[in-house]
Amino acid sequence: MAKIGFIGLGNMGGPMAANLVKAGHEVSGFDLSKDSLKLAADNGVEVCQSPIEAARAQDVVITMLPAGQHVLSVYGQILSEADKGTLMIDCSTIDVESAKQAHKHAQDYDMLSIDAPVSGGVGGAQAGTLTFMAGGTSEAFEKAEEILEPMAGRKVHCGDDGAGQAAKICNNMILGISMIGVCEAFALGEKLGLSHQALFDVASNSSGQCWSLTTYCPVPGPVATSPANNEYRPGFAVDLMLKDLRLAQEAAQKVSAQTHLGAHAAQIYGLLSDLGEGGKDFSAVIEMLRKSEKA
Amino acid sequence: MAKIGFIGLGNMGGPMAANLVKAGHEVSGFDLSKDSLKLAADNGVEVCQSPIEAARAQDVVITMLPAGQHVLSVYGQILSEADKGTLMIDCSTIDVESAKQAHKHAQDYDMLSIDAPVSGGVGGAQAGTLTFMAGGTSEAFEKAEEILEPMAGRKVHCGDDGAGQAAKICNNMILGISMIGVCEAFALGEKLGLSHQALFDVASNSSGQCWSLTTYCPVPGPVATSPANNEYRPGFAVDLMLKDLRLAQEAAQKVSAQTHLGAHAAQIYGLLSDLGEGGKDFSAVIEMLRKSEKA
Amino acid sequence: MAKIGFIGLGNMGGPMAANLVKAGHEVSGFDLSKDSLKLAADNGVEVCQSPIEAARAQDVVITMLPAGQHVLSVYGQILSEADKGTLMIDCSTIDVESAKQAHKHAQDYDMLSIDAPVSGGVGGAQAGTLTFMAGGTSEAFEKAEEILEPMAGRKVHCGDDGAGQAAKICNNMILGISMIGVCEAFALGEKLGLSHQALFDVASNSSGQCWSLTTYCPVPGPVATSPANNEYRPGFAVDLMLKDLRLAQEAAQKVSAQTHLGAHAAQIYGLLSDLGEGGKDFSAVIEMLRKSEKA
Amino acid sequence: MAKIGFIGLGNMGGPMAANLVKAGHEVSGFDLSKDSLKLAADNGVEVCQSPIEAARAQDVVITMLPAGQHVLSVYGQILSEADKGTLMIDCSTIDVESAKQAHKHAQDYDMLSIDAPVSGGVGGAQAGTLTFMAGGTSEAFEKAEEILEPMAGRKVHCGDDGAGQAAKICNNMILGISMIGVCEAFALGEKLGLSHQALFDVASNSSGQCWSLTTYCPVPGPVATSPANNEYRPGFAVDLMLKDLRLAQEAAQKVSAQTHLGAHAAQIYGLLSDLGEGGKDFSAVIEMLRKSEKA
Repeated sequence: MAKIGFIGLGNMGGPMAANLVKAGHEVSGFDLSKDSLKLAADNGVEVCQSPIEAARAQDVVITMLPAGQHVLSVYGQILSEADKGTLMIDCSTIDVESAKQAHKHAQDYDMLSIDAPVSGGVGGAQAGTLTFMAGGTSEAFEKAEEILEPMAGRKVHCGDDGAGQAAKICNNMILGISMIGVCEAFALGEKLGLSHQALFDVASNSSGQCWSLTTYCPVPGPVATSPANNEYRPGFAVDLMLKDLRLAQEAAQKVSAQTHLGAHAAQIYGLLSDLGEGGKDFSAVIEMLRKSEKA
Repeated sequence: MAKIGFIGLGNMGGPMAANLVKAGHEVSGFDLSKDSLKLAADNGVEVCQSPIEAARAQDVVITMLPAGQHVLSVYGQILSEADKGTLMIDCSTIDVESAKQAHKHAQDYDMLSIDAPVSGGVGGAQAGTLTFMAGGTSEAFEKAEEILEPMAGRKVHCGDDGAGQAAKICNNMILGISMIGVCEAFALGEKLGLSHQALFDVASNSSGQCWSLTTYCPVPGPVATSPANNEYRPGFAVDLMLKDLRLAQEAAQKVSAQTHLGAHAAQIYGLLSDLGEGGKDFSAVIEMLRKSEKA
Repeated sequence: MAKIGFIGLGNMGGPMAANLVKAGHEVSGFDLSKDSLKLAADNGVEVCQSPIEAARAQDVVITMLPAGQHVLSVYGQILSEADKGTLMIDCSTIDVESAKQAHKHAQDYDMLSIDAPVSGGVGGAQAGTLTFMAGGTSEAFEKAEEILEPMAGRKVHCGDDGAGQAAKICNNMILGISMIGVCEAFALGEKLGLSHQALFDVASNSSGQCWSLTTYCPVPGPVATSPANNEYRPGFAVDLMLKDLRLAQEAAQKVSAQTHLGAHAAQIYGLLSDLGEGGKDFSAVIEMLRKSEKA
Repeated sequence: MAKIGFIGLGNMGGPMAANLVKAGHEVSGFDLSKDSLKLAADNGVEVCQSPIEAARAQDVVITMLPAGQHVLSVYGQILSEADKGTLMIDCSTIDVESAKQAHKHAQDYDMLSIDAPVSGGVGGAQAGTLTFMAGGTSEAFEKAEEILEPMAGRKVHCGDDGAGQAAKICNNMILGISMIGVCEAFALGEKLGLSHQALFDVASNSSGQCWSLTTYCPVPGPVATSPANNEYRPGFAVDLMLKDLRLAQEAAQKVSAQTHLGAHAAQIYGLLSDLGEGGKDFSAVIEMLRKSEKA
């Protein structure tokens, strides 16, 4: 079993750390929030007073933080204090450039490192079924695999430094776009007199098939477990989708990639968020497309 | 066995009629092209000199024509000449409004009628594995089912008059949008150093999964049978996708439906067509997104 | 002085007909609304019981109707009843294709005809300062000029049949797009701490100058007479802009023209209309862009 | 007369420095390019071997550099070496955030500072007719005014730190959007049979009027001096417009501003650049919209 420092014990990090404890690892954790720390302690995490304390004398340090600046700031504090050869696993979803910088800093201090953002949400974090998309050397990834195991449904080695972040934003850009496409199809179909079920039956068995349709179907009915059947409670909130689409746009601008619908989708979720719906599931975009019926 | 008139014997209609002959039906056909007529004759279709001749004294009349105006024009000629109670099956992909008018005209002459556009392309027409999306009364659909059988992989009753056309354009709008999304993701991933295979492995097992990715993957490699492995030969040509997206836009404007990405996608395929690539598979949109590497 | 039949005496047609009366013309009018007819009578228009009655034995027949179908329907009734050689002036804003058909029908009956949609709104109609954008032969335009004079600030001969409609939708497409651009600039500038006046001063004297900025400035302050200073009362309503942008999209699809931002703008005004703001001035798009401040 | 250090003597900075010399100022300059330095020497600029040498013992230091990182890097070198109270004028067009940081660094060293990006291009730099959009304190702006005078046609104080950059990207976002709108209108008008001159005559006197139309008209003919009459030689190159639109997008994402058409326009110019046309005037977007005629 390994000695693991875990920095960032919020909605995602908290249950992830708990699963590591359950698997028998020795986990020391830090978070800025007292409440999160307390909850972590209840789950068997040894509480630390600072990131540095959590990072000292560990085999592995895991970070789960909101944005690139937080990861770089924490790395700035802990890398000189951690043991050489510590495996640094950053599970935060951050911009590709910061991820690459974090790797570089870690390597400057002779650490192993991977970027390993996740998908699967709070539910996946609790159930230990997250998908990890990892970037870094094969050596680092192989060492990380057994650590990630108690938290993971799937672990994919996507390539070199930053490739995990790249894979995540590319995947989520497809997702954000296809959901809007599905919502527009239902909104159009309705006005043409096509029933939800009929469109679902056709498209789910044809070339319109996609995860947004068959797993998160944005109208109530066809897919019993989709957020549409639960008043669009997330699920995957508009504001989280917006964050990922903006990371994708940031990356696209840096490398001069054309992302026509990606840019458009970011604007649409941004508008929905500004309309006060940022906390709803991202399939709620269909509500904005159907406002006319109420107007 | 039924007596069937078949009007429109081109790339799609030709093999469809041939499959009806093979199934034992007595098929009389008409087309403006002498070559198409000759080919049909070789396949056992009795050749007629006009739509009227093809429509007289039949159990069923099938039309497979380019656009709404052609269907309405042919119906204008034949409805007064065909037997009352003839089953009119229009397999053309046309605008929803014309489809509804065609039904109405048919009903004015006491005919049964369904709109039944197909997906599956020339390959599906030849193999007899087309998907038929049908609109009309249950009575008409049930009668049509056995006629469609030799040409069909699937037959879906989508709803009332025009619902088949509505289902097709809604499905294809999702398809056209999701393909661009997938292409943008690969274009972005490339520039971020992410391999095609890695992105495919992540997205095809995650929330980015869609038919455009897993069946028509727009980069060579991951899906052996996709047009990308065959120099983007169609498959489903840009200009056909453009036709369907314009039908969707036409319908959306008529009923005041919001189709943000649908409208944007129509512009993107329109540009690609104007750049001279209208005959390529629609997954070739990725080539436009990657031009920078050659520039 | 001329004998003029005027069909369509609503918000626009009413004051236009009144100005013709004031100029000394003999005007007979028809409208489906009793109220409009009564108001017209008060303004000196001789009231007719049908379009046909209004069109018989006139030198000129003017139509001011909502859409292409109305114009074609009225022409269908009156052309056989009017005197040969009557000058048909259609001031309605309609689709280019219907306008061309209307010309053709008129010519079939040996009439002279122009399409002559206007800009300037109700205010311009009352003041007699409308801009007329005309399409048709030089002969027809020249004959029309003196008739239009009492209603016009400007009369432009734009080209052959339909060119007036084409000019109007092209102009209004620029307008609809540039207004959104100006609104986005103010919305962005605000969040960057730039004052409205500073942005106005820079852009109105630089390459960002446009009518949307300098005449209809979408924020209160810089331009005293703009609708933004009057709670976004029109002015030019969102729903009217939306109508014109949809006519532009319809025309663009017919002729396969690329209109990327035109299509996007139509979606944005469509959304704003669906949000219940269709009656506000089209500069109110800025309110949708700034919702976040209230959320 | 003032002692001025000038860092960045390229296409823009070179002629700007020359105009300062002509006005009687004592100008010391630095550039990484030997050629630029030599040209500056020919124009009376005293050549320095480093940014530090150019910044020491001056009344004013002017920078004209490609991007935010360059400005921050140069400021990092020179601020500790320059005299306290030196007026720092940054004429580079850079991101708003970097501009604010540059101000902050300057103030940490007790310098006065303004951001003062320009419009007017190489022609304006040579003629001394640039527009300066300035951000910073009134004290700094007032001191800067007389220095800018020999290079300026106009000087606008836009607000606090960074307001000059904000004004420039907001103005240029309007410009980039309105130019595409005008190009789309001409492309649509052509296909509808409307002559360039007729559309120009209507729109330039109506609500479609904008600088893109009346000064940089994207079709040859109506405006003799527009780049369209000179094979789309810039003028203002596609790649420069793209740079500014990306700065606008970067800023918009930082502050969560909605810029629907701004984001779309950035994609369109990005595509045009990828198609190999980045060096043409930005009005060349019309060529992409008309490709169909050649296809």
